[in-house]
Amino acid sequence: MNKFNGVLAPVITPFTEDLLPDEGRLIAHCQWLISQGVSLAVFGTNSEANSLSTEEKLVLLDGLVNHGIDPALMMPGTGGCALSDTVRLTAHAVALGCGGTLMLPPFYYKDVPDDGLFAFYSEVIQRVAEESLRIYLYNIPPVSQIPISLGLIERLVTAYPDTIVGIKDSSGEWSNTAALNELAIDDFRVFCGSESFLLQNMQFGGAGCISATANVNPSPIKDLYDNWQSEDAGQRQARLNEIRQIFQSLPMIPALKTATSIYSGDSKWLRVRPPLLPLTTDQQASLQDQLESVGFKMPGL
Amino acid sequence: MNKFNGVLAPVITPFTEDLLPDEGRLIAHCQWLISQGVSLAVFGTNSEANSLSTEEKLVLLDGLVNHGIDPALMMPGTGGCALSDTVRLTAHAVALGCGGTLMLPPFYYKDVPDDGLFAFYSEVIQRVAEESLRIYLYNIPPVSQIPISLGLIERLVTAYPDTIVGIKDSSGEWSNTAALNELAIDDFRVFCGSESFLLQNMQFGGAGCISATANVNPSPIKDLYDNWQSEDAGQRQARLNEIRQIFQSLPMIPALKTATSIYSGDSKWLRVRPPLLPLTTDQQASLQDQLESVGFKMPGL
Repeated sequence: MNKFNGVLAPVITPFTEDLLPDEGRLIAHCQWLISQGVSLAVFGTNSEANSLSTEEKLVLLDGLVNHGIDPALMMPGTGGCALSDTVRLTAHAVALGCGGTLMLPPFYYKDVPDDGLFAFYSEVIQRVAEESLRIYLYNIPPVSQIPISLGLIERLVTAYPDTIVGIKDSSGEWSNTAALNELAIDDFRVFCGSESFLLQNMQFGGAGCISATANVNPSPIKDLYDNWQSEDAGQRQARLNEIRQIFQSLPMIPALKTATSIYSGDSKWLRVRPPLLPLTTDQQASLQDQLESVGFKMPGL
Repeated sequence: MNKFNGVLAPVITPFTEDLLPDEGRLIAHCQWLISQGVSLAVFGTNSEANSLSTEEKLVLLDGLVNHGIDPALMMPGTGGCALSDTVRLTAHAVALGCGGTLMLPPFYYKDVPDDGLFAFYSEVIQRVAEESLRIYLYNIPPVSQIPISLGLIERLVTAYPDTIVGIKDSSGEWSNTAALNELAIDDFRVFCGSESFLLQNMQFGGAGCISATANVNPSPIKDLYDNWQSEDAGQRQARLNEIRQIFQSLPMIPALKTATSIYSGDSKWLRVRPPLLPLTTDQQASLQDQLESVGFKMPGL
């Protein structure tokens, strides 16, 4: 199994009127993302994955593969609070041939010791028991409230060098992403959780980014990844930041869905599952105004 | 459906060697708790419920009822991050005749607005669509990181006066529990999340407590509930506090399981699911020493 690099989108999840996952729209969005050069971190934070049941994720994953989405391009989020759920979903992703899985730590119980997190990942790996399993750890303490420490990563890599192959760092702190790149681990793939850090991450030896806004601005982010050593890389980064900041000024997930709705002309993309809320009509208009004012488009949609 | 009052234990969940839920030991522990005068908040925080899958909880709930545990005495925790899971488990609890359900807010996404939490509870109630549904909200911001505000409670009770009938307050702040008792809601049942506040809660018009240590010290807590107006209530409260403090000096869930193991002579109770860890042997010895030094016993076990 090749390791991932480049740009991945934590794919937003469309819902039907009844708030059920909308498989058809999800497949179409995945196809569009692939056409734009990015891979698919389905079931990430921005996918509202933690508002979906394990059963719903299993069905969606089957649907994507059955409809021709290449599983090697998929890094589904499979980490949940329950060991049993995490094992079941991870084993299914491996059986389908997914290129890797992005794995949150269990996030309900707080202040758990690293020994407990090590035991959790260790049990998952041993229960899935597949040589082709590739885990990318998912560090997002602002949301999960469970940081994945450098020491824990080193212990996991030492115990499972062929399985623990990388990390997505959504700590929001560049110093942490830099420290991850400086770990003495051969070919450890460090993805930053926002394209704001993409150029810096590449300069430090990183593998790319897994970023919310890759749902709406995929090819320009991929272009910076492909051309990070070019002379105009700084300008490309500045342009990405300009667009990112517009999305960050609003609740991110409904903002991504609103942009997708606007540029695809499909208002069904506006739906979110509670506890999230759609943007208000004022917020929708503001997003559109801001995006138009900087000449933003979703290409080829 | 009568509303709950008195003392409930968030029932600790035993595991087999393979870390699967141990139905037999769970049933036996529930029977013992009932014999000691307390009701059963199965699938609470101290039940490691958030380390169990929805499927595992459905199977356990069936097993308990099929083995003669009176569902009217059960207030299972049914709130999860996913609307779909929460609806499925809640509907099942209602179908089995459970006396109520204890419902966490969805806890992955942080800083969600009250409107989003209102929408979540509202969708659950409308999808379960059973007149006999009785929800006790579960406010435990130190763990869930999602406070249930007084304003949200008032909105929910106004919209669903026959369904939203009470709350468990594990905020750890007496001022919040006091404020809940002062809400102008007819017969709203306020349970404190620790017996440390039981006497105060009863003096303020509360309904009782749902407390971790009711797993190990049930009848003395129930005695204070039954005798809170007696002259020696203060002494009873002080005795409860003495024992509570011993358990609080260690990681609570493994400490409860260790005490159960010691006093039942059944070391299989020591097991926890990751990310939790069992007590170390030193911690186990310390717990036993401290409990013996204050003459603690688990009666009738």
